[in-house]
Amino acid sequence: MNALLTDLYQLTMAAGYFEAGKIQETATFELFVRRLPLNRNFLVAAGLAQAVDYLLNFRFTAGELDYLRGLPQFARATPAFFDYLAGLRFTGDLFAVPEGTPVFPGEPLLAVRAPLVEAQIPETFLLSTIAFQTLIATKAARIVEIAGQKSVVEFGTRRAHSPQAGVLAGRAAYIGGCIGTSNTQAGIEFGIPVFGTAAHSWVQTFEQETDAFRRLQTLLGPNTVYLIDTYDTLEGARRAASLGNPMWGVRIDSGNLVEMSLAVRQILDQAGLHDAKIMATSDLNEYKIAELLAAKAPIDAFGVGTDLSVSADAPSLSAVYKIVELRKGEERRFTAKFSEGKRTLAGSKQIFRFADRDVVGCSWECLGCAGGPPSEALLQPVIIQGKLVQALPGVNRIRSRCLDRMKRLPASLRTLFESKEPWRVDYSEELLALNARVERSLEQEEKQ
Amino acid sequence: MNALLTDLYQLTMAAGYFEAGKIQETATFELFVRRLPLNRNFLVAAGLAQAVDYLLNFRFTAGELDYLRGLPQFARATPAFFDYLAGLRFTGDLFAVPEGTPVFPGEPLLAVRAPLVEAQIPETFLLSTIAFQTLIATKAARIVEIAGQKSVVEFGTRRAHSPQAGVLAGRAAYIGGCIGTSNTQAGIEFGIPVFGTAAHSWVQTFEQETDAFRRLQTLLGPNTVYLIDTYDTLEGARRAASLGNPMWGVRIDSGNLVEMSLAVRQILDQAGLHDAKIMATSDLNEYKIAELLAAKAPIDAFGVGTDLSVSADAPSLSAVYKIVELRKGEERRFTAKFSEGKRTLAGSKQIFRFADRDVVGCSWECLGCAGGPPSEALLQPVIIQGKLVQALPGVNRIRSRCLDRMKRLPASLRTLFESKEPWRVDYSEELLALNARVERSLEQEEKQ
Repeated sequence: MNALLTDLYQLTMAAGYFEAGKIQETATFELFVRRLPLNRNFLVAAGLAQAVDYLLNFRFTAGELDYLRGLPQFARATPAFFDYLAGLRFTGDLFAVPEGTPVFPGEPLLAVRAPLVEAQIPETFLLSTIAFQTLIATKAARIVEIAGQKSVVEFGTRRAHSPQAGVLAGRAAYIGGCIGTSNTQAGIEFGIPVFGTAAHSWVQTFEQETDAFRRLQTLLGPNTVYLIDTYDTLEGARRAASLGNPMWGVRIDSGNLVEMSLAVRQILDQAGLHDAKIMATSDLNEYKIAELLAAKAPIDAFGVGTDLSVSADAPSLSAVYKIVELRKGEERRFTAKFSEGKRTLAGSKQIFRFADRDVVGCSWECLGCAGGPPSEALLQPVIIQGKLVQALPGVNRIRSRCLDRMKRLPASLRTLFESKEPWRVDYSEELLALNARVERSLEQEEKQ
Repeated sequence: MNALLTDLYQLTMAAGYFEAGKIQETATFELFVRRLPLNRNFLVAAGLAQAVDYLLNFRFTAGELDYLRGLPQFARATPAFFDYLAGLRFTGDLFAVPEGTPVFPGEPLLAVRAPLVEAQIPETFLLSTIAFQTLIATKAARIVEIAGQKSVVEFGTRRAHSPQAGVLAGRAAYIGGCIGTSNTQAGIEFGIPVFGTAAHSWVQTFEQETDAFRRLQTLLGPNTVYLIDTYDTLEGARRAASLGNPMWGVRIDSGNLVEMSLAVRQILDQAGLHDAKIMATSDLNEYKIAELLAAKAPIDAFGVGTDLSVSADAPSLSAVYKIVELRKGEERRFTAKFSEGKRTLAGSKQIFRFADRDVVGCSWECLGCAGGPPSEALLQPVIIQGKLVQALPGVNRIRSRCLDRMKRLPASLRTLFESKEPWRVDYSEELLALNARVERSLEQEEKQ
């Protein structure tokens, strides 16, 4: 189950490790982001729950093994390799930064320490679930930050990259601070509040717009949100206002949202509907919301779709999963790659968060144990020897953590554009010394 | 199963249609793209197979219905509504443009004609599967077109928006003309050729790079692709060359790909390995491939990852699903929305493709039946009264169709940037007359 949700080369490497007698070696891989995307000053870690679920349930089915046996790339693999795969489970350790925590480039969001093959195969799945949700939680946190006291709801499922992406975008957007999602599957699966009332088609199926509105009000009462722009926004607003309470308010999905919201507010107020709210949708994002708020548009809630669920201005993260350490019995070897522009740092790491900066050190260090300012070690044990060490938090706790941790970031980072004072991330002396040794030994090897 | 993979408002509207006694009305919805994305001159339709699978298997589980009963939005819905949902199946018709066909803005990629609720609820799922795969197939077709005789493989699963997005991106990229994917699940599920041999971690787990290469060759023989840039690309190339055949060739994943490929080609040739190929990866896309080819880089195959699987320069399509027609017994009503900048055209449609242009007409027209140049009607019946009318083509047939249809497009459209001579899409006189009538009747209604 799920075992083929990976790149083929993870499986050919697995065959190679097996045939080379390396399956007893223990490897540590770390997942981190190389660079901040456009205009971002932080990332919000997300996706861990799905990563854990994958590792705990990882196994090959008989059908999957038959498929692999038939591929040309496995023509020279031995039958024993497939027997090995049939029994393969994740028996290693997973350390991770809790979801909802702000993180920065070069910091491991998670570390997998496991027998080589068990650590190698999950690379692709872990990247695609952690990087995507981190991307969306980050985008949501930006939008929520800019929206201030106004509510933001995630409405982007239809434009998400596949149905599953829609569900996970709903989850990540909630973690990042949205008050809910339109995605009903995200509602049932994760307990996220769901929102939404009616589309243009609802209005169009009635011959009179007022009939459509009246029927909606009968069904939804105080939850009614009238979509008023199917034919003429102001006329729609007058028709909605004529029905009076109960209603939540109205939604505007086209046109100049500043002008329209001002005119609609006036119509509602003149009808005495001071409590009726205005929601705006229509290709919104953090930049447009900032403009609407600057123009003092009387909008109470924003529904954000496409730009949130695909993180349109930065649709991918430079997330990678790199081997940093190997153990074979008592022997321990640190490893890095030196590819141009894509170097990595050897040695398993820990992130120590101080009030004003992070220090990435070796996992066996304890910065602050010898006195000095206090720090928090962000990478925490999640799975040990294949077993979950404690129940994972639900989305509400994760979301609270995110909102709380976001407040602790300097205001200069919580802006629309790249800050001139990025969060400071240092490396510990021990980590730097270790890497100098690794580089020297590699240079000596090159000379031989 | 899958029934909650939708926006909540589809379900509140369903409740509204039910309570308003409208479930016997038949609606026609059409899915189309409003505008071409940046630099695109065409779209390649894809994702139909997953849409069909969804419609044929659509149903609510008891647990899903319980969840809905507990939501505040359904507090006023009657028990009979949930009984109705429990028995709900898709019993309508689906017409669609075959996957692999180039399409243009305003042209329906599919049309659903079904009882109102059955046509409304699928909107979200249909958009998220059709729009995403169409986006990726289009991106792939652009890349493959620019690469010319060179092979392109899809390697982007790890950066795709969720594990499912990775699988579907592999499918769509193959449809668009890639020779295969690294995604093993796409391999087993759709029969797509899979590629990949080893990552940097493979090299790093051996103390000597040459040992890593030798082991890979033993396992993979003529399929061996050495990744040579872990430490030093040229040294890696010499080590690979020293092992001689069998091998497919080498892969370069960093640095200046023009300089590196020239130097590596020289090393391979000097070792007499003229048949050994060079594959390049490293954040490639159609623009960079065009530059590499213009610089005459001796690269035989391109592995394209992130930019393909998220369509990085245009990560979403302005795809919508709009109601165009309603029937209630013998009564037929055409409908459109007039929202500012988001108008739609009433009436169910057909796309007639001529040699030099398309005409979008009414679905009951037959352009060309009365003589004149021949045309092809692109929207074909796929599901009639809830039943599949014929087996859907497999990915190989779809891919062949795409490659064939792409060749028929004018060369001016198969370019990197927006063409000054876009494909001509006209509307039939009958469709325009129908919409003039719809608009007039709406204006009269507004005046009343």
